[in-house]
Amino acid sequence: MSSPGGGFGDNVGMTTSDKNLDSIRAVQWQGDHLRLLDQRLLPSEERWIDCRDAGQVTQAIRDLAVRGAPAIGIAAAWGVAMAAQQKIDLDDVLSTLRAARPTAVNLMWALDRMKKRIAAGADADALLREAQAIQDEDLAANRRMGELGASLITAHSGVLTHCNTGSLATAGYGTALGVIRAGVAGGQIDHVYAGETRPWQQGARLTMWELVRDGIPAKLIADSAASHLMKSGAVQWVIVGADRIAANGDTANKIGTYQLAIAAKYHGVKFMVVAPSSTVDMATGTGEEIEIELRDATELLSTAGQRTVVEGAQAWNPVFDVTPAELIDAIVTERGVIERPNSIAMQAMFGW
Amino acid sequence: MSSPGGGFGDNVGMTTSDKNLDSIRAVQWQGDHLRLLDQRLLPSEERWIDCRDAGQVTQAIRDLAVRGAPAIGIAAAWGVAMAAQQKIDLDDVLSTLRAARPTAVNLMWALDRMKKRIAAGADADALLREAQAIQDEDLAANRRMGELGASLITAHSGVLTHCNTGSLATAGYGTALGVIRAGVAGGQIDHVYAGETRPWQQGARLTMWELVRDGIPAKLIADSAASHLMKSGAVQWVIVGADRIAANGDTANKIGTYQLAIAAKYHGVKFMVVAPSSTVDMATGTGEEIEIELRDATELLSTAGQRTVVEGAQAWNPVFDVTPAELIDAIVTERGVIERPNSIAMQAMFGW
Repeated sequence: MSSPGGGFGDNVGMTTSDKNLDSIRAVQWQGDHLRLLDQRLLPSEERWIDCRDAGQVTQAIRDLAVRGAPAIGIAAAWGVAMAAQQKIDLDDVLSTLRAARPTAVNLMWALDRMKKRIAAGADADALLREAQAIQDEDLAANRRMGELGASLITAHSGVLTHCNTGSLATAGYGTALGVIRAGVAGGQIDHVYAGETRPWQQGARLTMWELVRDGIPAKLIADSAASHLMKSGAVQWVIVGADRIAANGDTANKIGTYQLAIAAKYHGVKFMVVAPSSTVDMATGTGEEIEIELRDATELLSTAGQRTVVEGAQAWNPVFDVTPAELIDAIVTERGVIERPNSIAMQAMFGW
Repeated sequence: MSSPGGGFGDNVGMTTSDKNLDSIRAVQWQGDHLRLLDQRLLPSEERWIDCRDAGQVTQAIRDLAVRGAPAIGIAAAWGVAMAAQQKIDLDDVLSTLRAARPTAVNLMWALDRMKKRIAAGADADALLREAQAIQDEDLAANRRMGELGASLITAHSGVLTHCNTGSLATAGYGTALGVIRAGVAGGQIDHVYAGETRPWQQGARLTMWELVRDGIPAKLIADSAASHLMKSGAVQWVIVGADRIAANGDTANKIGTYQLAIAAKYHGVKFMVVAPSSTVDMATGTGEEIEIELRDATELLSTAGQRTVVEGAQAWNPVFDVTPAELIDAIVTERGVIERPNSIAMQAMFGW
């Protein structure tokens, strides 16, 4: 078998101090307006959008210029704060922003937090501080998860990740990609593989952009090459994010995550889920209760705007899947690490 | 979990007699020239190439207008026969054709068979008959494998396939896709799922074209959605082709096959390999001895001619992987079926 190791280019010989592993901030408050890195155009173009009112923030969320659950919540909080500066009716703004991506849990969470401050009589300055706090806390949580996750990894490991869970999806640093940044900086991780993540290609378009930009040794693989990669011995951990974690540790995440977990178990490769505690939903008992969104078949039938599949063809296009807790070696949140997750351990850390 | 079943469109209610399940012949001898369906343009265009000498056949093989190991061998045999009709030096023709795709085992096999007839003094008419025999035997082998494979499947099953193993890759009917055609005709198979097969998209571009064209109820999935599909209970068999089968039953096939086999085992879904006996290589002891070709990173870094990944990115792009015999429930060749393959059973059917 051909080894995928080696050939990682000039970055391999660099020491951590040579590199800036955390240079990207996709959501930037500019004192009077919000700058967003337009993720639809990456990696071919780095274009910034200047949002000067809450309506423009709503539009950016709705149009997917900003994506990633934490990043969406942070952008929305800044939108509310801007509206307060501009003395616009905040009830209208809250309901418009809430409707921009109706299924995004973090969006609701951030708006509820702003709403509570408004109800308590906060002025525009206080709401700006609240938005800044939401952003700062997300970054701090990511750094904490980075430390916790990296500490689980033996020196000089290879890792595989899926989708984009990095600076682009958060206030910065990232969740699963934050663990990878921390692990590269700390010497636990030598090399990173990223799955393409069909059909949206977040791994190919966004994660590879972050990794190359921050000088982290990385190679892209087809999603279907993951098992062959594991068999080669090149990776010791699979590290992924989460969209929702149930009370027993079952984890919903981007389609393809479940397949990676099965392959990891077969090869004795370890499997880590990294997500802020706000992703844990103790009201959902198990993954069986999580409804999986099916998206339009056209996402599979066309590629890069060109029809690639015969007219008349059908497709089945689930966006997420559920990885059962039994396939997960560690769930990492900013509150701590749960190894071999189950209902009892989850209740002890996240229960009331 | 959302069920992928149902919604298979108008074809579902049709009876087998309403449908022509085997309408495609991509390699057609026209009495004085060879017509090839240009597979590079499918599914957007059905353009035929008329090859009027062996040089044009060589070009079509080299440029991938014709692909699929059996189809390449058949086209080459017709090229030799045409050269004999045109009284061209056959040694030159044989060596030029042999170099068109140097790693294609079936190409070598078909040319060796023509060479043996030439050495025995065959005239142009005899060589035309030999080329026709190679083509007819391939089709007959596919029909036989179709019957054998379909007989293993319980009525009303769903199946998942990978890459393209159909009429486009063979004299007609196909290997794994031949079993699917036979199973749909016989009532064993109700619905078919096809994986995209990144990075070349043979499943999306070619298999879906065949299935839609022949009215077989089918849905395309992302390669990474296969495990989620299996968990839903929608498929009872994974059915794939093979590039090489080792003496112990280990099978090299398109990248992603191994991952499907692992997922199938985890879910109790059965796994079938379908290939002519010429694919069995008793001189290769196990899959560990099979060298896996790595192709250029650009295949993953660009999509549909557009750069989709940041400049400076690297990729790891193995074309094949090896599925160990322990994950295979049945190997189907025209000589018969080996269930739960191992060295002893393989030796009994394919040994000297």
